[in-house]
Amino acid sequence: MQKRAKATRRSLLEAAAQLFAEQGYAGTSVNDISARSGRTSGAVYFHYASKEGIALAVVRDRFATWSQLTTAYADRAVPPVERLVGLSYDIARALAEDPVTRAGARLWAERATIDAPLPDPFALWTAAATRLLAEARLAGQVAPHVRPAPTARALVRAFFGLCSLTEALEGAATVTDRLTDWWQLTLPSLRPAPGAHRPAGG
Amino acid sequence: MQKRAKATRRSLLEAAAQLFAEQGYAGTSVNDISARSGRTSGAVYFHYASKEGIALAVVRDRFATWSQLTTAYADRAVPPVERLVGLSYDIARALAEDPVTRAGARLWAERATIDAPLPDPFALWTAAATRLLAEARLAGQVAPHVRPAPTARALVRAFFGLCSLTEALEGAATVTDRLTDWWQLTLPSLRPAPGAHRPAGG
Repeated sequence: MQKRAKATRRSLLEAAAQLFAEQGYAGTSVNDISARSGRTSGAVYFHYASKEGIALAVVRDRFATWSQLTTAYADRAVPPVERLVGLSYDIARALAEDPVTRAGARLWAERATIDAPLPDPFALWTAAATRLLAEARLAGQVAPHVRPAPTARALVRAFFGLCSLTEALEGAATVTDRLTDWWQLTLPSLRPAPGAHRPAGG
Repeated sequence: MQKRAKATRRSLLEAAAQLFAEQGYAGTSVNDISARSGRTSGAVYFHYASKEGIALAVVRDRFATWSQLTTAYADRAVPPVERLVGLSYDIARALAEDPVTRAGARLWAERATIDAPLPDPFALWTAAATRLLAEARLAGQVAPHVRPAPTARALVRAFFGLCSLTEALEGAATVTDRLTDWWQLTLPSLRPAPGAHRPAGG
């Protein structure tokens, strides 16, 4: 794609994300997106075909792809449980502050009113958490009874519920504090009993 | 209120709840409620003043008052953590199966589109959980570092996120299984270390 066309696509996507995050899907028109971006409505239809198309692009760009949010996720020098916790803070911050991520979350919540199948972000999040827990288990860093897949599934859903309800009830500024309360409540269950398990060769 | 007027109110509320749960707030009109209940639109306006009024009544009736859902909550013969866990299963079942509770949850999720301040159900839920945790702490049945209020807040939000996301992603039938996974992940963090703490006089 030409550089200029790319810049147009990006500015449309960011204008749409701001509007979806502020006003929701039903409250945002293609004309609003055109006015906010300073581009024509024709540009919206040319690049994204429809309002559904640009909503889908917003969800795919950030919300459905959290593993791109952070480089810490892939750093093998950091213990996997620590990476998982770090990643959760990165996501929580993005959900509180980044307009494209916020728009993705709001569109997902409003998916019943959107005439297009939105990607399920939680499958990807859960797969990433499962890999980290499996790695931690192999290294003896979580209790042997912690099964990676169901644990990851429960963690991701509880985490997302905690972040969205905290923001709804108390505002975005308290999300990281509440996330700390939640990890304090959750991490002890993951830890191996002292002396109960040592990594192979330990 | 006369018996007949009470029956009319109830049938309007239940018809409205079914419709809100199925079609959402915006997708339901006073005419729909009248048609589903077999009463006149005039009856809706007479008993609830407006569509907002009947939505508010639906939220208040069940979703915002979970402590009425169960008698087990008050049974002092049962250990408080066990009552908390039992209560969570009662709520999860109501969220999956009871139309008035389901409607309350959906209306709460759609509160941005409703022109009336809906009661926050989570304050009451959190107060109930705080009381149970405080009782458990006094009895030495949770670890001494478990602070009842922040723990209750995190538990309630994580619990509700888990239930709503599980239903959205997998359907209502799997909610109790996922709730069991989540409690297995959470309860060990609440428990006192073996021999670390005994109730007064123990």
